[in-house]
Amino acid sequence: MAQSSISPPLQFCVAVIGVGLVGSEFVSQLWSFPGPSPFRIVLLATSRNLIFQPDGIPKTTSAQLKAEVSALGLPFDAPFIARELSGLVKPGQKVVIVDNTSSDDIASLYPTWLRLGIEVITPNKKAYSGPLNLYEDILNASSETGARFLNESTVGAGLPVISTLKDLVATGDKVTRIEGVFSGTMSYIFNQFSTGSTEGPSFSSVVKFAREKGYTEPNPADDLNGTDVARKLTILSRLIPSLRQQLPAGFSSVDTASLVPEGLANAASGDVFVQDLPKYDEEFDKLRQDATKDGSVLRFVGVIDVEKNLIKAGLERYPVTHPFATSLGGSDNIIMFHSERYSPRPLIIQGAGAGAAVTAMGVMSDLLKLAY
Amino acid sequence: MAQSSISPPLQFCVAVIGVGLVGSEFVSQLWSFPGPSPFRIVLLATSRNLIFQPDGIPKTTSAQLKAEVSALGLPFDAPFIARELSGLVKPGQKVVIVDNTSSDDIASLYPTWLRLGIEVITPNKKAYSGPLNLYEDILNASSETGARFLNESTVGAGLPVISTLKDLVATGDKVTRIEGVFSGTMSYIFNQFSTGSTEGPSFSSVVKFAREKGYTEPNPADDLNGTDVARKLTILSRLIPSLRQQLPAGFSSVDTASLVPEGLANAASGDVFVQDLPKYDEEFDKLRQDATKDGSVLRFVGVIDVEKNLIKAGLERYPVTHPFATSLGGSDNIIMFHSERYSPRPLIIQGAGAGAAVTAMGVMSDLLKLAY
Repeated sequence: MAQSSISPPLQFCVAVIGVGLVGSEFVSQLWSFPGPSPFRIVLLATSRNLIFQPDGIPKTTSAQLKAEVSALGLPFDAPFIARELSGLVKPGQKVVIVDNTSSDDIASLYPTWLRLGIEVITPNKKAYSGPLNLYEDILNASSETGARFLNESTVGAGLPVISTLKDLVATGDKVTRIEGVFSGTMSYIFNQFSTGSTEGPSFSSVVKFAREKGYTEPNPADDLNGTDVARKLTILSRLIPSLRQQLPAGFSSVDTASLVPEGLANAASGDVFVQDLPKYDEEFDKLRQDATKDGSVLRFVGVIDVEKNLIKAGLERYPVTHPFATSLGGSDNIIMFHSERYSPRPLIIQGAGAGAAVTAMGVMSDLLKLAY
Repeated sequence: MAQSSISPPLQFCVAVIGVGLVGSEFVSQLWSFPGPSPFRIVLLATSRNLIFQPDGIPKTTSAQLKAEVSALGLPFDAPFIARELSGLVKPGQKVVIVDNTSSDDIASLYPTWLRLGIEVITPNKKAYSGPLNLYEDILNASSETGARFLNESTVGAGLPVISTLKDLVATGDKVTRIEGVFSGTMSYIFNQFSTGSTEGPSFSSVVKFAREKGYTEPNPADDLNGTDVARKLTILSRLIPSLRQQLPAGFSSVDTASLVPEGLANAASGDVFVQDLPKYDEEFDKLRQDATKDGSVLRFVGVIDVEKNLIKAGLERYPVTHPFATSLGGSDNIIMFHSERYSPRPLIIQGAGAGAAVTAMGVMSDLLKLAY
């Protein structure tokens, strides 16, 4: 009879590495999970310290999480983490490491963890947008043990971008083109700078204001160089079977047209960068004028053209009637999937693509995928 | 050691009830699943016949599926289905019924199946948009045995609408308002009829053309009465905890402003309906004129206002700059989620919301959620 098939629900030991903005928001979402929760947090770690309690770390005020871990924790110890967590993997109980850092060192540990049967969830783009051999090692490790890796929030934060692409591919659709505004910072800058009008604020003033608001990296060059977009394109393109091995070096293999002026490539700091950027306002204004004459706006986009094997990031013009002009605002991401089924009109996903709450939501929704 | 935790992957016995357009497309997607598939189809049924092979029905040309089942099958027998399928539920093997019908009778069986430990996946809106007691019986049955029910394709077909709403709720976001164009037919009709211009085709001519193209039900009154939208609003609102019990009678409790003229409420057939509809063109033209004077377009939308406990379907005006005017085209659905996190700018999902291929994709993606 059916009753015999009902096993007790899986339990999940969750280890959280990185308890900054995203990490502490994630912990707070997890501790607020309603009803009987299958999740308990067994480990909290900063880059320097860790707390490990296999029976579950009691709920606390997560506002002070980082300080608490620093004050009470043991020194950070990667072999200790792998050893202790793998000891918790057993039938009926899964162990999940949630990496909320942006560390390359932590990312390089995913294959080890997966081989120990530990699942990995992360908003950290490093492992999935880096060299192909690390990515393939992750795929192999996962298929060896069945431990899963999920990284929804590496593209579009809480927006269902990766899950949608996976569904399109797994259900046999043929994705032909993905095109989108993938950087919240770039979205904000060009939504302000290029509206289809010939007049408007100078490029440098928009960047300066965005930096003051905290919308850019400390040095805006780290946004304007397009690396973030190239990383996201790498992550998506590897989910498309025919493009899986297209980018051997990862994001640096993407055809990226940086917006950092050559003369500022080596600016000593963010302060220097924004101070010197006005020298290039005329160039950016010319681009805007040309677009406007053409009935277009400028947007910094990422494009994956599957048929042409083309993966590129850069500034493009879109007609003022295009959704990238009409529908976009704030620092929204927008992603269009063109496929055999979604043709001639694409599947579109739009919304905030950055911020601690929505990034943590993407992480939490991955955790829920493992459990439900 | 971790190795001990690796169990063989779950196997899935899939029973497909309804092998018309969506059903046969689903079967085709399932049979095309790449790599070692954990799925085997054990039952295929039309409303009159069924084929049952517990070891798996061999792959065939699904173009003739319906004819094959009719020619070779036993008579349809619901108790037989429940009995035989529940016998296949065992540790390591799940049984999934995929209901591709639009039958109320089949929908009423979900609680029985779930109580036998059989999972249920469906694009059939009936069970989830009907009386609250059936819905609650489904919830209870599922929680008693742990068998799951998934119905992504009941709203927006393959678009990730239900999964996104579930993620928002489960991760602790506070959804404040959902607003969207939920009917592909209504989308097509008003995208053609109301473009922000005072001139345009008559309402009846747009409806007549849509019917000829196969975009409407045989009797367009079945689209224009708003029932389909009311059903989708019911399904979504029940996923929001504070609205779960808001619609005791289901879709008929939704505040729906039908577009069927009173004089045509009892039209004997679709032919009669489109023949007499021109009598009402003046009324619809007046609505268009008024909207245009206002700088707006007309769209038939569904709204869930969580704070006001308001769930309504009807014709609304949107400024010509609104995404419902600028971004929408064809017979696209568009759904906006406003929440505490996605504020002031909403999370938006847009794309084809009807058609066999994308509906079957939603069904298949639900099946993949059970397996991966």
